[in-house]
Amino acid sequence: MTPATPLNSLGQPLRAAHARIPAEISSSADYERHAVHHIEAQAWRHIQGGCDQERGLAHNRQAFDRLRLLPAPMADLRGGHTRLDLLGQTLAHPLLIAPLAYQALAHAEGELASVRAAMALQAGYLASTLSSHRLEEIAAAAHAARDELGQGAPLWFQLYSQPTREHSLALVRRAEAAGYEAIVWTVDASVKRSGFALPSGVEAANLHGYPSLRQTSQAGARTIILGTPLADAAPSLDELAWLRASTQLPLIVKGVLNPRLAREAVAHGADALVISNHGARVLDGVVSPLEVLPSIRQSLPATPLLLDSGVRWGTDAVKALALGANAVLLGRPVLHALAVAGMLGVAHLLHLLRTELELAMAQLGCATLEQLGPDCLWNNS
Amino acid sequence: MTPATPLNSLGQPLRAAHARIPAEISSSADYERHAVHHIEAQAWRHIQGGCDQERGLAHNRQAFDRLRLLPAPMADLRGGHTRLDLLGQTLAHPLLIAPLAYQALAHAEGELASVRAAMALQAGYLASTLSSHRLEEIAAAAHAARDELGQGAPLWFQLYSQPTREHSLALVRRAEAAGYEAIVWTVDASVKRSGFALPSGVEAANLHGYPSLRQTSQAGARTIILGTPLADAAPSLDELAWLRASTQLPLIVKGVLNPRLAREAVAHGADALVISNHGARVLDGVVSPLEVLPSIRQSLPATPLLLDSGVRWGTDAVKALALGANAVLLGRPVLHALAVAGMLGVAHLLHLLRTELELAMAQLGCATLEQLGPDCLWNNS
Amino acid sequence: MTPATPLNSLGQPLRAAHARIPAEISSSADYERHAVHHIEAQAWRHIQGGCDQERGLAHNRQAFDRLRLLPAPMADLRGGHTRLDLLGQTLAHPLLIAPLAYQALAHAEGELASVRAAMALQAGYLASTLSSHRLEEIAAAAHAARDELGQGAPLWFQLYSQPTREHSLALVRRAEAAGYEAIVWTVDASVKRSGFALPSGVEAANLHGYPSLRQTSQAGARTIILGTPLADAAPSLDELAWLRASTQLPLIVKGVLNPRLAREAVAHGADALVISNHGARVLDGVVSPLEVLPSIRQSLPATPLLLDSGVRWGTDAVKALALGANAVLLGRPVLHALAVAGMLGVAHLLHLLRTELELAMAQLGCATLEQLGPDCLWNNS
Amino acid sequence: MTPATPLNSLGQPLRAAHARIPAEISSSADYERHAVHHIEAQAWRHIQGGCDQERGLAHNRQAFDRLRLLPAPMADLRGGHTRLDLLGQTLAHPLLIAPLAYQALAHAEGELASVRAAMALQAGYLASTLSSHRLEEIAAAAHAARDELGQGAPLWFQLYSQPTREHSLALVRRAEAAGYEAIVWTVDASVKRSGFALPSGVEAANLHGYPSLRQTSQAGARTIILGTPLADAAPSLDELAWLRASTQLPLIVKGVLNPRLAREAVAHGADALVISNHGARVLDGVVSPLEVLPSIRQSLPATPLLLDSGVRWGTDAVKALALGANAVLLGRPVLHALAVAGMLGVAHLLHLLRTELELAMAQLGCATLEQLGPDCLWNNS
Repeated sequence: MTPATPLNSLGQPLRAAHARIPAEISSSADYERHAVHHIEAQAWRHIQGGCDQERGLAHNRQAFDRLRLLPAPMADLRGGHTRLDLLGQTLAHPLLIAPLAYQALAHAEGELASVRAAMALQAGYLASTLSSHRLEEIAAAAHAARDELGQGAPLWFQLYSQPTREHSLALVRRAEAAGYEAIVWTVDASVKRSGFALPSGVEAANLHGYPSLRQTSQAGARTIILGTPLADAAPSLDELAWLRASTQLPLIVKGVLNPRLAREAVAHGADALVISNHGARVLDGVVSPLEVLPSIRQSLPATPLLLDSGVRWGTDAVKALALGANAVLLGRPVLHALAVAGMLGVAHLLHLLRTELELAMAQLGCATLEQLGPDCLWNNS
Repeated sequence: MTPATPLNSLGQPLRAAHARIPAEISSSADYERHAVHHIEAQAWRHIQGGCDQERGLAHNRQAFDRLRLLPAPMADLRGGHTRLDLLGQTLAHPLLIAPLAYQALAHAEGELASVRAAMALQAGYLASTLSSHRLEEIAAAAHAARDELGQGAPLWFQLYSQPTREHSLALVRRAEAAGYEAIVWTVDASVKRSGFALPSGVEAANLHGYPSLRQTSQAGARTIILGTPLADAAPSLDELAWLRASTQLPLIVKGVLNPRLAREAVAHGADALVISNHGARVLDGVVSPLEVLPSIRQSLPATPLLLDSGVRWGTDAVKALALGANAVLLGRPVLHALAVAGMLGVAHLLHLLRTELELAMAQLGCATLEQLGPDCLWNNS
Repeated sequence: MTPATPLNSLGQPLRAAHARIPAEISSSADYERHAVHHIEAQAWRHIQGGCDQERGLAHNRQAFDRLRLLPAPMADLRGGHTRLDLLGQTLAHPLLIAPLAYQALAHAEGELASVRAAMALQAGYLASTLSSHRLEEIAAAAHAARDELGQGAPLWFQLYSQPTREHSLALVRRAEAAGYEAIVWTVDASVKRSGFALPSGVEAANLHGYPSLRQTSQAGARTIILGTPLADAAPSLDELAWLRASTQLPLIVKGVLNPRLAREAVAHGADALVISNHGARVLDGVVSPLEVLPSIRQSLPATPLLLDSGVRWGTDAVKALALGANAVLLGRPVLHALAVAGMLGVAHLLHLLRTELELAMAQLGCATLEQLGPDCLWNNS
Repeated sequence: MTPATPLNSLGQPLRAAHARIPAEISSSADYERHAVHHIEAQAWRHIQGGCDQERGLAHNRQAFDRLRLLPAPMADLRGGHTRLDLLGQTLAHPLLIAPLAYQALAHAEGELASVRAAMALQAGYLASTLSSHRLEEIAAAAHAARDELGQGAPLWFQLYSQPTREHSLALVRRAEAAGYEAIVWTVDASVKRSGFALPSGVEAANLHGYPSLRQTSQAGARTIILGTPLADAAPSLDELAWLRASTQLPLIVKGVLNPRLAREAVAHGADALVISNHGARVLDGVVSPLEVLPSIRQSLPATPLLLDSGVRWGTDAVKALALGANAVLLGRPVLHALAVAGMLGVAHLLHLLRTELELAMAQLGCATLEQLGPDCLWNNS
């Protein structure tokens, strides 16, 4: 079914990644516009897609777009910076790369390119369980880049629960051994549809020899999902407590939107939370992380909160931080930049976003991240 | 005026129904997109149309689309299912097929195909007074399918009041004799415009020899509708009480939106209500069933409520149930699937919607329908 | 500058009015779609246009479109009708034809065609000061139609203040002599831009020999409108009191949106008000009549209120009456129907709207206009 | 990279400015539609652009467009006018020309043409630090026009802070010497992106020999903007106090949106404020001036407030004044008119806007600007 010449979703032959950044690119939106030419059609639809009507994707952007920023000129900006402390590490800025699966769909060097760019631009990096390179390779690339540059940023491992706790634990032990500095456990995507078949040459490199669990409903079954092993084995608070007891690394729970669940996750040992709707890929009509963020911050005043899903501009980061996030994760934009210009593209994207972030902070009269708060937003409700 | 070769509304020759389901269909929206090629132009407009500006159609979708789902990962989903008890029957899931008139407009096998698919997928089926096959034939097909599969779902008869109570009662008696398990009396569509002429070969098979009542205003009349026999004979609470006294079957009133009327209908003997605006086909600008549902549920905490009009996705069913419905009816999507692939199409559609429903329940942390409630929705008003 | 062959705004040669109503017309929107072929380009833009950005036009429709109708099936509709009493006359229904200027732009027979259609369909008729036939001719046509049909509807004269009270009074006296039954004094359009030049053959037939007042600002003037005779001579409450004292006919003030002004107009002698923004032709961004109607009704519980501007469907009339209007005026739709099929078109349009009105009333469970009220609307604010 | 023949953004050869105003122009929107043919592509994008997603541009228009004007016919308009007193001067009307940089991008005569048109139409004029003609030349043109016409309007100088106070003061002294009557100090645009390269022949004529400060971040720097000289030298309240002490001219602070900052600016010596978001060119997602205006007016009841950013129609000016502004500034529309027809175009634009303003005032029943207030707006929130 694959044509001899791979095509992009516009029906054109796929273009190789650029050796340099196209001159006219000056924002993440420009990378998206270019990336469509560099990614094979099926993979593009998989990367871009939300699900069903894609209302969740719309919610994610609407939540950012309806907010109004309120500048504060004539503030004292001297000595300003974007540093923050997070789980015992100091970050140069609050932009991290989300755990993006199968980055080889965007560029042959995949995670190895993106992690090098992240370290060069001092952006925290989350390696996915479903990475197309092995977690050990990614860590090695990150450490080499840190050593070469004399600087760097946090390196965390994102964990999907495996069919047995033994195999989940094996991944945690491998991450510890490879030098990852935190475990990010994703709880929102174990029960979902999967219609995408990986092209040849792309695979879950970390999971050779691991068991897998698939939807197995039979014709005439009284249920399709519920009551099957797939649903019965979904992540639980019990598993969270077990995981907390199983590693010394900081433990971050990713995929929380519900203030009640946020409190329970912390009560069961989470050190931090990623407020995320998984890029609106799992449940259509889902609430956006930005909409729930103020409630979660209110009920958990001291817990580090990272906001994921929908961040495209530096002003988005500013809005999330003003509403209570400590930092934000970047998702699809990283794949777009990776597809267009590899490591160089991701580094450029990060530089653009850092610039946008600092320009917005300056306009808002905030010399440091701590000064970002609800006062930076005009309440027009 | 009918061309020699029937055309669809795109001006193309009509395609026959597929012998198999087209590969790229994975949602009810895909069926709609395909169905336009399989339904003759006039019938397509009749099926798809709301009325006037079609604001009612828009309201129906907006009411679903503005809601935000709030996932609850890490819930205990073990032993989950979608069963419910309704009017003394146990249903495998809360998706029923609405009483759709003249299904032969979509597919030659019409109601016989859709009722077989319903029984195979354990979906309740409502046969319309205006079906293009006789109610006795539809019931026979349903019972044969139940017997063959060893499973099934409720079979109900939808009643439009006839010009005389004698003829209405005749329909009820025929439905009882044929084994229908409830009477669904529609009260919202007796006074409406009808500009659609049935094509040759399609007819109200149940009503041979029955009288009919048509708009009869004369030029110069002081009124056109009001004060004519058409309006004077509209369904009344008296007729409801009479109907209640006339049959032992459960009696469901379909077409209620008004909380006051909902209470009165129950007070006059309705066992359950279908909250419906008749697919926005009768009154433009009409409120959507989902908008009024919470008020009706609040004033009738124990009455079974079925929501009709606008359901297209499994997440829609979840939203309706979260706001107080016991089950939902599927309308136009069934005609689309029927037109594309006959019985197979309808069965596939039901499987897709059941899957969507269960995936959404799993995401929302609900192992059973009882757990769906307002907590599953983010209040962003 | 006028081309040899007159063109419509689509650049096509103008079509003559149809001798019969095109088969596919079944609503006022259909008439609008057809009318564009029958009206010369400049006149079309003049008729259709609001002003500036045309936000006022949008407001007029949005105000209707955002409302939700709440049906009430099973009501007792026996003996229903649409009659109402207004200023001492009994009307068969609450649909009147607004005072539309220069109807010869739409059809050669102009006001003579529309007034005959109005009388045939028992719709009240407001003749404009700026009619393209003399008010005496229009009245004669109306009376002849009434006599012939043995039925009819109110005939009122719309008055624009003339540069001198003497000339205004002359128009009132002519209207009284011709048998008009009320004076409708328009107060909202004396100070406005006028960029439209009447084509040859169309003129203000009533105003031969009357003086006129035009914008006369000179280069270097300190103001352009304010402080000039045009603004200084605008309608005033003094003039209202004088007019009230000058005629025995009922006096209706047209062009009120402001609740304070509505009370003052009544205090100065107005017998009724037309809540109107002049079809959004005078001031862009103007509030819509429907938005202000509830406040005006609340402060003037007993004053007859007619709603003008934006009515296109029978459901619009129902919404206006539910919010407190006694009747509604029809504007642009009349010109569209007139252009398409002359008298026949206007009569057909009125029949369509009456049918829509009665169908909506039946759906809402209202047998008479008095039963229309806020309960017919779902409050979704 | 510049093509031999300059092209507009539609890819057509650039048209010279018209020697006369095109006949079909009757609003600022018409000028915009024409201007695209007369401005070189890069310059057009620079002039038209907001930044990033251009949500700020959208906010600016939405804020005007959502308001509803409430007419008040039958008011006494005799002796009406549009005069106002502002900072010791009497203005014929409340429309001023904003300090638009590099007007030679639109027309070779640039600021010399626009200032002559302003004086002819008695519109206040703000000359930009970044004008393409020297401030002394602009002042000379203004004074010559005033003398010739025997009338005129305020002439103010807009100041951008220079890298040293010495150079800022030099500009102030030159402005005083040239006869400018106020200093307008812009505080909202010192830290921003600048991707636009001036074409040859266009330059900052006032700044020959002045130092400049550019973004100088190095690869590997821990910050890009914050903590660099660019951010550290941003306008401050200290600088405001110094500037206040340095000149006898009235001092206006431009670029305030924040009510708190507005109060502080006045406390530090500002005689008036320009409520502006710099045409949404600096920070995307920024709140619109009209949204914040009521709060600023409430906290500063007596301070002259000028509203900038988004004004396109006379009704916009009316809305701003109704919400508390004393006057408004015109931005992009002036460049459009300048490009289309030079001085004549700008004069025509001002005449159109004055006419629109006075027509709207007449409709609202306001004979003078003082009568414009919240009562002129319908509260539909």
